[in-house]
Amino acid sequence: MRALSFDGTRLRFDPAYPDPAPPPGHALVRVTKAGICNTDLELVKGYMGFRGVLGHEFAGVVEGGDWDGRRVAGEINLACGQCPTCLGGMPTQCPNRTTLGIDRHDGAFADYLTLPVENLHPLPASVSDKQAVFVEPLAAGLQTLHLTHISPHDRVVLLGAGKLGLLTAQVVALAGCDLAVVVRHARQRALLEKWGIAVAEPGSLPPHQADVVIDCTGTAEGFADALALVRPRGVIHLKSTYHGLPQADLTRAVVDEVQVHSSRCGPFEAAIRLLARGLIDVDSLIDARYPLDEGLAAFEVAAQKGTLKVILDLSP
Amino acid sequence: MRALSFDGTRLRFDPAYPDPAPPPGHALVRVTKAGICNTDLELVKGYMGFRGVLGHEFAGVVEGGDWDGRRVAGEINLACGQCPTCLGGMPTQCPNRTTLGIDRHDGAFADYLTLPVENLHPLPASVSDKQAVFVEPLAAGLQTLHLTHISPHDRVVLLGAGKLGLLTAQVVALAGCDLAVVVRHARQRALLEKWGIAVAEPGSLPPHQADVVIDCTGTAEGFADALALVRPRGVIHLKSTYHGLPQADLTRAVVDEVQVHSSRCGPFEAAIRLLARGLIDVDSLIDARYPLDEGLAAFEVAAQKGTLKVILDLSP
Repeated sequence: MRALSFDGTRLRFDPAYPDPAPPPGHALVRVTKAGICNTDLELVKGYMGFRGVLGHEFAGVVEGGDWDGRRVAGEINLACGQCPTCLGGMPTQCPNRTTLGIDRHDGAFADYLTLPVENLHPLPASVSDKQAVFVEPLAAGLQTLHLTHISPHDRVVLLGAGKLGLLTAQVVALAGCDLAVVVRHARQRALLEKWGIAVAEPGSLPPHQADVVIDCTGTAEGFADALALVRPRGVIHLKSTYHGLPQADLTRAVVDEVQVHSSRCGPFEAAIRLLARGLIDVDSLIDARYPLDEGLAAFEVAAQKGTLKVILDLSP
Repeated sequence: MRALSFDGTRLRFDPAYPDPAPPPGHALVRVTKAGICNTDLELVKGYMGFRGVLGHEFAGVVEGGDWDGRRVAGEINLACGQCPTCLGGMPTQCPNRTTLGIDRHDGAFADYLTLPVENLHPLPASVSDKQAVFVEPLAAGLQTLHLTHISPHDRVVLLGAGKLGLLTAQVVALAGCDLAVVVRHARQRALLEKWGIAVAEPGSLPPHQADVVIDCTGTAEGFADALALVRPRGVIHLKSTYHGLPQADLTRAVVDEVQVHSSRCGPFEAAIRLLARGLIDVDSLIDARYPLDEGLAAFEVAAQKGTLKVILDLSP
């Protein structure tokens, strides 16, 4: 099969990568569309020490087995299902997990992938394949609401209006709260204004007023800005990973008795429900589409500052 | 009056510091005993830019007014009582506050101090003056339980068994949880064993098992240890301020979906209730007592590694 794979040094298009053989309990999924995520851009710089086929945002069709012919999205964490963490209802935190296209399991930038059947979620006809590529990051945005209670009374500020930030902003705005997204670029401003979500210039918001600050920047500066914006005993929610070990003013956090929450992978069912109801605009986030054999060019475009989602088209 | 004051450069004993004049609503308190806290040791290094009389842990007797003759402890934050934060029930977070012996309000290392009457708490006869010196730090330890729910089911680890850590450990142990305190010194080990609280050698606890880790170290290493000990979706509670801007592995926090809580000043009534019932051993934490005019020597001893509480005796 065709695949975009990373050997630890460089990313390459391979027209004859070995077909995956689904182990017991796994389904074979023919990938139709896949999305390039910031994590993919980090992986090709060495994050996680990954080797193999990249890609964890996808839509596909099952081939064979009980699910034959079904259009699906798929959860990316392959959990053991037997440890206390799994049995405690947190399979995405399983210490024995591998992760699709991120950690020791070949991913979605290929004609085929395998995933345990329990990871699959059927897609309704109202969610197109290219929309379904956003199920995974939208679920990650929704996980913010699983791990931090956002009340309709709350004043919420979101920092970092990139791909994940724009999805998270749409999710949080559905809570009815007083949300302001700090924007630095006209593109983001225009999207948010189209959606009816309030925007704010950097530095324009009053200090120490926000009940919740959601930091999607992944930078030490973003965390410092969040500390300046959050009220005493408010919550900073980290919705992004960081480069290296950022410096953080933990003394400010203690003096203000701030809570720092964070979240990673989230609920696919909820993401599919919101997409099916047309409540989240993902089509506006697609900046470019490439066939798989132009995957290297797709990565170059995805890495350019300001690019939102780049989609790989695999099969129709 | 006599006072230990700091002029921004050096700490000195002043036999003729001006007597404080209580403003309307304040009581004049004759200090009987006071305690030296790590914050005092930081203040004489320049923390907060404080100038004036140090000291915020004390017991005293009111002179004059409705409270004349009453033995009291006193809350250290002088809140405005009128801002949204005060009206919202968080006076210790008032943005207009000054703080006894820490921020623009003369403190307790002197014959007299003034505090708003609403800051005062009567002391029962069962709590001695030297025990009452611990009301303020014990209340800070109790604030851990106000801002983090610790269940009797929880596995809890406490790091940093100094003065505040040993008070916090005693408070947390009352929750009935499975508490282990990581100790590096024989003195701390002996105290905890006397109290029937489990101890652990550094590095001996299993990784990623604790539901809650309470970090009383105030160091970047302590935070890193806490991240290694806490389970996915567990809580790290910061019960200490930090020097400068420590580096923190926020990516690890996000990947494990850990929550970081923190707390500062706490409930005096609860601290007094626990002391009155004899549930907290503070007498064992007193390492030395000095008269006020030997305050400089007292600070030197307090700054020595391993010293627990040093008490200043003012009037009988």
